[in-house]
Amino acid sequence: MTVEWAGGGPDLLVALDRGAGPLRIQIQDQLRTAIRERRLGAGERLPSTRRLAELLGVSRGTVVDVYEQLLAEGYVESAVGSGTRVAAMPAGGPREAPGVVAAAAPSSGPAIADFEYGIPDLGSVPLTAWSWAVSEATRTLPTAELGDEDPAGSRHLREVVTAYHRRVRSGCAVAEDAVVVSGFRQGLAFALATLAQHGLGRIALEDPGPREHDVIARRAGLDAVPVPVDAHGVDVGRLRETGARAVLLTPAHQCPTGVALSSSRRRDLVAWADDVDGVILEDDYDAEFRYDRQPVGSLQGLNPARVIALGSVSKTLAPAIRLGWILAPARFVPGIVEEQRLSSRGAPGLDQEALALLIETGRFDRHLRRVREIYRARRDVLAAEVEHAFGPGRLQGLAAGCHALLRLPDGTSERAVVAAAATLGVRVNGLDHYRLVAAEAEAEPDSRPPALVLGFGNVSEHQISRGIRTLAKAVRSQTRH
Amino acid sequence: MTVEWAGGGPDLLVALDRGAGPLRIQIQDQLRTAIRERRLGAGERLPSTRRLAELLGVSRGTVVDVYEQLLAEGYVESAVGSGTRVAAMPAGGPREAPGVVAAAAPSSGPAIADFEYGIPDLGSVPLTAWSWAVSEATRTLPTAELGDEDPAGSRHLREVVTAYHRRVRSGCAVAEDAVVVSGFRQGLAFALATLAQHGLGRIALEDPGPREHDVIARRAGLDAVPVPVDAHGVDVGRLRETGARAVLLTPAHQCPTGVALSSSRRRDLVAWADDVDGVILEDDYDAEFRYDRQPVGSLQGLNPARVIALGSVSKTLAPAIRLGWILAPARFVPGIVEEQRLSSRGAPGLDQEALALLIETGRFDRHLRRVREIYRARRDVLAAEVEHAFGPGRLQGLAAGCHALLRLPDGTSERAVVAAAATLGVRVNGLDHYRLVAAEAEAEPDSRPPALVLGFGNVSEHQISRGIRTLAKAVRSQTRH
Repeated sequence: MTVEWAGGGPDLLVALDRGAGPLRIQIQDQLRTAIRERRLGAGERLPSTRRLAELLGVSRGTVVDVYEQLLAEGYVESAVGSGTRVAAMPAGGPREAPGVVAAAAPSSGPAIADFEYGIPDLGSVPLTAWSWAVSEATRTLPTAELGDEDPAGSRHLREVVTAYHRRVRSGCAVAEDAVVVSGFRQGLAFALATLAQHGLGRIALEDPGPREHDVIARRAGLDAVPVPVDAHGVDVGRLRETGARAVLLTPAHQCPTGVALSSSRRRDLVAWADDVDGVILEDDYDAEFRYDRQPVGSLQGLNPARVIALGSVSKTLAPAIRLGWILAPARFVPGIVEEQRLSSRGAPGLDQEALALLIETGRFDRHLRRVREIYRARRDVLAAEVEHAFGPGRLQGLAAGCHALLRLPDGTSERAVVAAAATLGVRVNGLDHYRLVAAEAEAEPDSRPPALVLGFGNVSEHQISRGIRTLAKAVRSQTRH
Repeated sequence: MTVEWAGGGPDLLVALDRGAGPLRIQIQDQLRTAIRERRLGAGERLPSTRRLAELLGVSRGTVVDVYEQLLAEGYVESAVGSGTRVAAMPAGGPREAPGVVAAAAPSSGPAIADFEYGIPDLGSVPLTAWSWAVSEATRTLPTAELGDEDPAGSRHLREVVTAYHRRVRSGCAVAEDAVVVSGFRQGLAFALATLAQHGLGRIALEDPGPREHDVIARRAGLDAVPVPVDAHGVDVGRLRETGARAVLLTPAHQCPTGVALSSSRRRDLVAWADDVDGVILEDDYDAEFRYDRQPVGSLQGLNPARVIALGSVSKTLAPAIRLGWILAPARFVPGIVEEQRLSSRGAPGLDQEALALLIETGRFDRHLRRVREIYRARRDVLAAEVEHAFGPGRLQGLAAGCHALLRLPDGTSERAVVAAAATLGVRVNGLDHYRLVAAEAEAEPDSRPPALVLGFGNVSEHQISRGIRTLAKAVRSQTRH
């Protein structure tokens, strides 16, 4: 089966372009490709180095280099007396050549408004300040800190973030309690894995709540159980019945219903945690945006021995600046750091320093003040448009954050409205979307009154107006049938 | 047990400073702290808002705000007819006040030289170029890409990285095969978890090899088995005997022995993978730094259907720029993306764009050329000093990368030399350090000839000279006994 490579020469396989970079590289790339694509078959003998050099008009040394490289890489083999032959290539068809794969078409957003939850105003991301902060970090970070970092994260950022949390969120954590992570989700995964290590086998999750938190809990080795949320926040009585000793909460602004955990529920919750030797995971995701009053303080400040607070800059700066933190009771910190060390070694050191500088210099606060006014204006437009289109009392959860719940008329089908809105150019999710993945898989019908979750962080006032009017149309089209 | 709060007034608890920010914040911070520290006990009644306002000389509205805030946060409770009382605080002692924790003393490096493995020249990190690239990214990244990113990573970076890998590493992956991660370790964790999902239950690891890879494998649900490495790289015959269908390799420059996988072993390996329907994880960690010849191409190019290539910029740029990639056969990509999505949502979008720009504009290549010369000079000094101090033929693995193996005279105790060197101001690890954690836990004595692993990436020529002379002293002090 060995075919001699003669006659016409290698010009079909190797075509040199004298202006296109080193000839050695050109030859070896083309031979490699020919072997991969089986245009040169296994066992086929390559011409002698002298012969190929002549044929191609290059020095013999160049061809020797090429053959040695291909030999070292395993594309050809060489045996005394038998010259250089193509090695057996692995089974499987030839690989699709790079460049021929069509680029995926960029997904275009909905025409009128996108009320997707959880995206901050991307037009307001403080890019100039961030660029300044990274530049400053490259200038000021000690050289040694460019190396293998402390898996707990930059000490500077941990000091700055805990000081911020004490000042703005009434927390009481110090740098030693903090671990820097790449965002909320990573923080949650690390915290849950650590709870599992501590023998906590079950976690209660708010229902409704963000999708997939049950999947994430299960990956960390925990059993997830839902606990209902009412107008005062999570139902602590029902929490007690689950037998769980850990719960994940959004006390400042429940996701997605927007209710704040009431004062008495906060106390009940703290009592529950003490009674069961439990742990509260506090997702403090949009507490900075409260419009009518000072934000309610973090639960972490109220019960630092039992609360793990999780924060990130995804909503305050941008998802593309991927930094977050865990503030945990001392007994959990080593386990969380170990999770970090074994799974990712932490967030980028330069970014950590940049965030520390951004907060320390007041730029972060100034940015928050600026976007808070933007969100407040959007919220006001949302409230006015919803009242105009749907009547009073339909919105819930507008006191803080960048989303609210719009209660639909009884008997309306959420899914039908969501689908009708989509055809009219408005993207929105129903409350039904915020169920545990497991609950949804069981395909039990959702018994909650129909409602839509309206994220307005990244929707302009004009888009809100048009979007709400279009939603009203979508609802009417459904209730009429 | 209720103590009325009267007489001397609240001045011991609340001391206002008219120049130090809003009075409301000062009052509530001080009351919160007093409650946390139990200077105000559970059930204790706070003065009426009118009374406290008088005592402090502030408006009554201010005190009302403070009480409402503390009520909302759960520090106090309020019942009709009984005024405002301190709520029961959770069990556990008062929290240590922030600020009193002594800052950890910065750990100072060894006095003479630090031959720790795996740290690149931190003085050469292209900080100006990185700062430029981030600034350019903030200017040019489309606004929409500041939002919730594709968990596979920036399409732009995936295109640029795979083009780079094709050009420099003779790979043949395209953007669809790539997932951007936060570094090698995260890439490894995601790849291993995906293999476990595909039913591969066991992975073979090079022995000696980096510590803790067995721990990471076990966390991903795989059983880890060691395979010996000899002068030609991993022993493929022994690999076959393990029954594993996956292996993690450093073919370009074995960590820590420095040998390159030989041409015939590369072919054996590819044949093994086809025979057992197996997968090769290729850790391409310092292949860019090869001094005597062009780097040996990536195994990924040789067998794209069976190789998962893992790369990162920790060695080429800096650990503090935390980006890496996985290039995987199509069947594994969805699983890897799912791991990313559920565990961290990916690397920072702005950093991804910055790296794409750094590579695309040629700045990355220019940086590599520059540091390659620095490492080459350090390597030459290392070779000369070792030959001078220990005689010829003692160093192995100098053809590439930033570390080499120094074989010690037979009968020398690695541990004793490492300890003696430390007292003389030189940090270095013995080969013995590069064992699986599990193997070490079994406390079997290492039967390999004694050797030291010398990382020279972040050690100046002067430090190398002094460090090697000191090491020679440490060795003599041990062999003399």
